[in-house]
Amino acid sequence: MDDVRFMKEALQEGRKGLGKVSPNPPVGAVIVSKDGETILGRGWHQKAGSAHAEVEAIRNANEQNSSVPLNGTTIYVTLEPCSTEGRTPACTDAILEAGFGRVVIGTLDPNPAHAGAAIDILKAGNVEVETGVCEIECLDLIRFFGKHITTGMPWVIAKSAITLDGRTTLTPERGRWISCPESRKDVQRIRVECDAILVGGETVRLDNPHLTLRGEFAGDRKQPWRVVFTSSGDLPESSHLFTDEFSDRTKVIQGQDLSGALSGLGQMGITSVLLESGGRLFAHALAENLIDEVILYQAPIIGGGKNRLLPVDGIVKDLRDVSFSAIGRDQKIRGFL
Amino acid sequence: MDDVRFMKEALQEGRKGLGKVSPNPPVGAVIVSKDGETILGRGWHQKAGSAHAEVEAIRNANEQNSSVPLNGTTIYVTLEPCSTEGRTPACTDAILEAGFGRVVIGTLDPNPAHAGAAIDILKAGNVEVETGVCEIECLDLIRFFGKHITTGMPWVIAKSAITLDGRTTLTPERGRWISCPESRKDVQRIRVECDAILVGGETVRLDNPHLTLRGEFAGDRKQPWRVVFTSSGDLPESSHLFTDEFSDRTKVIQGQDLSGALSGLGQMGITSVLLESGGRLFAHALAENLIDEVILYQAPIIGGGKNRLLPVDGIVKDLRDVSFSAIGRDQKIRGFL
Repeated sequence: MDDVRFMKEALQEGRKGLGKVSPNPPVGAVIVSKDGETILGRGWHQKAGSAHAEVEAIRNANEQNSSVPLNGTTIYVTLEPCSTEGRTPACTDAILEAGFGRVVIGTLDPNPAHAGAAIDILKAGNVEVETGVCEIECLDLIRFFGKHITTGMPWVIAKSAITLDGRTTLTPERGRWISCPESRKDVQRIRVECDAILVGGETVRLDNPHLTLRGEFAGDRKQPWRVVFTSSGDLPESSHLFTDEFSDRTKVIQGQDLSGALSGLGQMGITSVLLESGGRLFAHALAENLIDEVILYQAPIIGGGKNRLLPVDGIVKDLRDVSFSAIGRDQKIRGFL
Repeated sequence: MDDVRFMKEALQEGRKGLGKVSPNPPVGAVIVSKDGETILGRGWHQKAGSAHAEVEAIRNANEQNSSVPLNGTTIYVTLEPCSTEGRTPACTDAILEAGFGRVVIGTLDPNPAHAGAAIDILKAGNVEVETGVCEIECLDLIRFFGKHITTGMPWVIAKSAITLDGRTTLTPERGRWISCPESRKDVQRIRVECDAILVGGETVRLDNPHLTLRGEFAGDRKQPWRVVFTSSGDLPESSHLFTDEFSDRTKVIQGQDLSGALSGLGQMGITSVLLESGGRLFAHALAENLIDEVILYQAPIIGGGKNRLLPVDGIVKDLRDVSFSAIGRDQKIRGFL
């Protein structure tokens, strides 16, 4: 039985929940026939408070294949099934009731109150349990939840478009955009996945950004929170953030330090923040170790412009697990702190 | 007959001449049996004034396979054979004399006085001629020669080690090196291929570099010229460049503009210059369109240090044909201007 193949299918299901299930983790599940050949059902957790991925997959299997009993089949779940009743019944009960012969789990629940508890319950019910299949991808899928549930703080992604030599603006005649259209589209994809977008007051004053989901991404989910972190409170009332159709999704934080601001967002149930600020706030967050992930869109340009990514000195941070991928004419660089 | 495969063998031969044949181009050749199965001989041009690759390959084939006649076999050459007598006889004569049935040529001679002349001579001698096999790689191999023969100027490669955000120094406690050992070894490999290494007076004063070939690279060829470009002429007499065993390979250029300095190096027969200067000279060369190729070793670090690659504003240059490759923990970025 090809566990990796089916877990990747479950991951694909789970990813559909990104940006929609907060403060819950996105989770995906697939049910595979006894002979390990056929996917009988698929499910993903669609919204906090609604059915979990396992229950969705069971429902889907019953709909699609009402004549095939689930007894003895295998369910692949990206995250350890819940073992206590929350807003929905415990998934371990649903699994036992359906009669699965085997449960393959991507990663354990990072919540220390649950971690591993489901394994014992399922094994006690004579279900074969396997864990850690595609664990890295499964952990990546729930990284927002994992940080939030263990620390109360949101996961912070800092993103920027830069030249090869770290400039963030070009000369005026070269216009506004450093990154290519494909990179800018990718930013939309990341926005869709995050609960909030954070900028500093300076960005609002200088750029008057919309920070909205656009085009094909707009219909997919509720507009993420737009958070402005300001010390002066000096923000133009006519800014798009205060006047457009999503003005009720704008939140101004004043009179707090950045760590306190992020902690407050975490208390609101915001598990992920996309930092789209200028360099000073980026540098400040970096120096205070508040950034978890960095995404840079690096254009094949050198020498451009007068601003640089981090306009301060003395910070040196090594990124972990750095990956590079081509995106249009740019390179997308992703790394962790 | 697999032309690409054998041209790649010829390229591999030709690359052995990098850094050794200036102001000639590096060239490689292989001779393949009539049935297209067996390499009968290999050769590369080893030194300006000595036998060309074709002649070396014929000699090698006769040594290795004295019983096999070359009549009707195929010779692969990365560069169009010479058709006039220089310090050595014309290779077209040697090819006709050996009786090859087919000549496969990577790229034509960029020297407008020769380009294509060999084709006519060979065809008139009833030899089948094919051109343009692996042309991009063959042109890359002779790019120093190509620029020098057509413009009199050397090909200039600017290289630097930078962080993801374009810093060229780290904080003092993080020490001297941004790039990883594998990247620093790669710089040695590039130095071996170039005729001269160019720095500004500031680099000599601040860093007192050796700019020598080291370790496994030292024995392979003569130490490249070390050229110091200075306006003030204020260079410490005790610098390594003036006192080490290669002091006769140090050249100081004062009182010229950079373009004139490079032109003078071209007149000396220097076809390639590796610019290992600080950012100001790099920026200056970039602004004056004197750089042909940029190589950046980008470490997975952000925020570090006080210097940035190009400490000036207002230059924006798009790189062409940018390639990225992993090298140790760094990314090597190579692009053209």
